[in-house]
Amino acid sequence: MKIAILGGTGKEGWGLGFRWAAAGHEIIIGSRLAEKGERAAEEMRAALPDDAAGAVSGTDNATAAAAAELVVLSVPYEAQEATLADVRAAVQGKLLVTVVAPLGQPKARVWRLPSGLSAAEEAQQQVGEGCTVVAAFQNISATHLRDLAHNPDCDVLICGERAADKDVVAGLCRDAGMRGVNAGALANAVIAEGLTAVLLGINIRHKISGAGIRITGLAEEE
Amino acid sequence: MKIAILGGTGKEGWGLGFRWAAAGHEIIIGSRLAEKGERAAEEMRAALPDDAAGAVSGTDNATAAAAAELVVLSVPYEAQEATLADVRAAVQGKLLVTVVAPLGQPKARVWRLPSGLSAAEEAQQQVGEGCTVVAAFQNISATHLRDLAHNPDCDVLICGERAADKDVVAGLCRDAGMRGVNAGALANAVIAEGLTAVLLGINIRHKISGAGIRITGLAEEE
Repeated sequence: MKIAILGGTGKEGWGLGFRWAAAGHEIIIGSRLAEKGERAAEEMRAALPDDAAGAVSGTDNATAAAAAELVVLSVPYEAQEATLADVRAAVQGKLLVTVVAPLGQPKARVWRLPSGLSAAEEAQQQVGEGCTVVAAFQNISATHLRDLAHNPDCDVLICGERAADKDVVAGLCRDAGMRGVNAGALANAVIAEGLTAVLLGINIRHKISGAGIRITGLAEEE
Repeated sequence: MKIAILGGTGKEGWGLGFRWAAAGHEIIIGSRLAEKGERAAEEMRAALPDDAAGAVSGTDNATAAAAAELVVLSVPYEAQEATLADVRAAVQGKLLVTVVAPLGQPKARVWRLPSGLSAAEEAQQQVGEGCTVVAAFQNISATHLRDLAHNPDCDVLICGERAADKDVVAGLCRDAGMRGVNAGALANAVIAEGLTAVLLGINIRHKISGAGIRITGLAEEE
């Protein structure tokens, strides 16, 4: 699939793109500045194994979004609104997968959004009904993504309105080496986003970098 | 420890009390009606292994709270306010561990509280500063608790303001056969409460009864 990663120069977006490129997807790294996107793409091409065939390019966010079939939003929450304003036209008719996890104020590990909505719901409001937002990968530490030989010991909560869209994202989870779990409606994204704050606090208290979650109780084969 | 379980006739509270009694704690099952508490205590005594020494009794909620060193609130969210009004005086100077997880309206699996606070924070507001509220066990399915030979494959998120209080609750997690993980401030209880809705949805979609979570990335010995 042709996937644009808005904010793909950041650790999380870059790591996801890296894994998807290694799995054969075509990755377009978007950034505020085209040249930063290009530079990140160059790094990704150099880091990929020789036999990983996915094509990787870089450009600005709007060009990336326009060229892609599926768009991933991976920017700091503070940049979400401006980034979406930039790509609003380009994402119409597409699936927008948001990775955004707002951090709490004043303490990152105590989380709450003033609007009462999740960042994912705010994104859905902003892009309008012509674009479908699915929230995923909020709880995946970037440290799990850079080493292709590493199997991340964590699940991905997937929140969205339509099962078919969530199935597409579950496929992207598998391609990145993880299990996606349907976590319900987009309103539930608030839980995945808040869990990021909880996991950050756990990282700090335990002096680790990659706390994650697993859903237990599912049949093994799932 | 002498533990009162308000709403201990319900599956979740009963199951926790059962495990704690088996671990040697003194359990006082509270209910709206003293005779319902007494009957649940009788059932618990009958179900306990002969060598499980914890004393088990039952009474009304206020009497139970007054007699205990630590009070567990395990009622449906809809009964939280009335129950706390009943025991407000009795819980002063004590630790109140709330297990309450509000279910979403209109759909149980889509969760949001109108006050903008977690149920745990609402509880803290209601009992006042003389009583300390810690949230825990929101994500533990009662199906994990009734069989003492079963090791629940799930962790307990513990949210509260003071580490020392959370250590006490972590001890209760161990006594019930589970690992407690410090999940930060009481404000984070909103995440554990919301996760209950997510897990409920997962149970429904996968036709299982005991979905839970594990925190991954911690050192094995923890």
